[in-house]
Amino acid sequence: MAPTTQSLLPKRPPPLLKDELDIVIPTIRNLDFLEMWRPYFEPYHLIIIQDGDPSETIRVPKGFDYEFYNRDDINRILGPKASCISYKDGACRSFGFLISKKKYIFTVDDDCFVAKDPTGAEINALEQHIENLLKPSTPFYFNTLYDPYRKGADFVRGYPFSLREGVPTAVSHGLWLNIPDYDAPTQLVKPRERNTREATTLYVDAVMTVSKGALFPMCGMNLAFDRELIGPAMYYGLMGEGQPIGRYDDMWAGWCMKVICDHLGWGVKTGLPYIWHSKASNPFSNLTKEYNGILWQEDMIPFFQSLKLPKDCNTSQKCYIELSKLVRARLGKIDPYFIRLADAMVTWIEAWDELNNTSGTASAAPAKVK
Amino acid sequence: MAPTTQSLLPKRPPPLLKDELDIVIPTIRNLDFLEMWRPYFEPYHLIIIQDGDPSETIRVPKGFDYEFYNRDDINRILGPKASCISYKDGACRSFGFLISKKKYIFTVDDDCFVAKDPTGAEINALEQHIENLLKPSTPFYFNTLYDPYRKGADFVRGYPFSLREGVPTAVSHGLWLNIPDYDAPTQLVKPRERNTREATTLYVDAVMTVSKGALFPMCGMNLAFDRELIGPAMYYGLMGEGQPIGRYDDMWAGWCMKVICDHLGWGVKTGLPYIWHSKASNPFSNLTKEYNGILWQEDMIPFFQSLKLPKDCNTSQKCYIELSKLVRARLGKIDPYFIRLADAMVTWIEAWDELNNTSGTASAAPAKVK
Repeated sequence: MAPTTQSLLPKRPPPLLKDELDIVIPTIRNLDFLEMWRPYFEPYHLIIIQDGDPSETIRVPKGFDYEFYNRDDINRILGPKASCISYKDGACRSFGFLISKKKYIFTVDDDCFVAKDPTGAEINALEQHIENLLKPSTPFYFNTLYDPYRKGADFVRGYPFSLREGVPTAVSHGLWLNIPDYDAPTQLVKPRERNTREATTLYVDAVMTVSKGALFPMCGMNLAFDRELIGPAMYYGLMGEGQPIGRYDDMWAGWCMKVICDHLGWGVKTGLPYIWHSKASNPFSNLTKEYNGILWQEDMIPFFQSLKLPKDCNTSQKCYIELSKLVRARLGKIDPYFIRLADAMVTWIEAWDELNNTSGTASAAPAKVK
Repeated sequence: MAPTTQSLLPKRPPPLLKDELDIVIPTIRNLDFLEMWRPYFEPYHLIIIQDGDPSETIRVPKGFDYEFYNRDDINRILGPKASCISYKDGACRSFGFLISKKKYIFTVDDDCFVAKDPTGAEINALEQHIENLLKPSTPFYFNTLYDPYRKGADFVRGYPFSLREGVPTAVSHGLWLNIPDYDAPTQLVKPRERNTREATTLYVDAVMTVSKGALFPMCGMNLAFDRELIGPAMYYGLMGEGQPIGRYDDMWAGWCMKVICDHLGWGVKTGLPYIWHSKASNPFSNLTKEYNGILWQEDMIPFFQSLKLPKDCNTSQKCYIELSKLVRARLGKIDPYFIRLADAMVTWIEAWDELNNTSGTASAAPAKVK
């Protein structure tokens, strides 16, 4: 019998890392934004963290495979250690990183939509992040044609052959079209960029490794990482209710993560993929959250630029505990907030080890799977 | 009387830095390639360095303002110090940097043509280099939207305000469409890229500062720099006839220049502009020139990555002399070539000071202006 047309078609390969990646979404609203992501996210498992009042109902579109946690769940699972998870701030997403059992995480904000590349084609952001994570990084020497592992690129003349194997990629930092990730002062002085119709960001068709020793502002809106490598450093700190600072959660995680990646010899990529960022947050309320961060970052960044981790810190956990001591000793002088943050960093690692390293972790922290 | 249409048209501004920039071109052939560059280069002054046999005639298209030097001129002007200028190698272009009296240099190879951007518009490479040089750099912290001074970009959230003024830009490193700048082994294993019809490089619409502490392979094909700041470090070394190495002239200058820029707090940009690189060099003859460089770069790069310049080295010249001592002491162990190179670095600075710092320099080194 002749084969049918259907059977002659090449089978579509299964989605990459389908069973090895969780998508973590912090939210305070119904997740209608998932409709646009359906073709890309539906094969994957979602971890949704409800921020704010646990009594409010969050609607998740049908057909998605997800687990859901609100503040009550976080308190129940972590007990007293729940104090390290921020409340009324997107920093609560850290709980999703903690509770996941997968090797990889992709986290995205609920005001981020599928972007289009200059040809008009939809960008599969998750697929690009996975490509970034699965291909090596080159932190020790800058390649002028950007990611040398990308199709159409290579290592250029003068690139040492001993470094061409690269190193494991720990983090993939994606960018944003439409509304750029600006701070409150920049939002205030660029009023046109508050108007979504006029604001736009250049589309730059590149992925690159952030050089060893260089720090950058990591935005948590569109981010993927290797949880097994760097998960313990992906703590978004103490932000939101009861804290003197907001909108520095991802920055904090980014600085901590980068110095640890540099120390342990892992790579951090930035560039593609773009998402479409739909909603500029309010610059006035942002300023209220940010002003301490704007001030403190002038000390925090030199702190991270100059610190050295001891050689025997050979895991993310050990590095992070060491970092907490340095934060206490050196940033604690700036404001008592950093003493509380240093404590929370230790609590976070304790919670991480409890939920991840011990046997029977899964049953000790039952997820509410819907 | 009514004004004529002509007088109503806005006057075209004069070309940027017209009297402050020289274009340096090393060549062994007639400069017909200049025809394509005519609209962009004609307002500027050219310095043409003939490589190889001085008795051969190089034809320069009419209408260009240029001065011309062959080996006899170099020997006449520099006397015994001419030994530091390479022969039968593009590294001879250093002489053009030395003899120029302008603040800025743009240097371009004679197999480089005007490229087109993705919209099909011709790229004015020189104008983009000038923009790169006149706008500050940001070497101390990576901006994820690349050059923050570019139209449509800015500093993102988490960028310290104290660093937003940037630092002076010393070097602008442009890229290449069509034939990428690959080493001989890569050319050999990518045979398709020897065919100009199939080879192409991704167009990446970005300019960025190379982070402080990061090294990169500087290609001399399409390069501009602030001669007053970094000119003394832009020495292309000893290559070509009588030397055990070739095709590492620009790499050498790039590594030296970068550690000096890092030490003195100046910026180095890479990315735009692209030129169209027409002719892949022969991979077999390239391999003959490169093999020592491929071997030695495994030591040269760690040498540059780890060296520290003393605080009292506060000019390019002082840094370069200090660097020559380190080259002698640390790379001299690898091969006697580096002892000769260290000597030539000192000779180069002596020649630089003689032609640039003393009064009456211009008359001491008369240019053959045609």
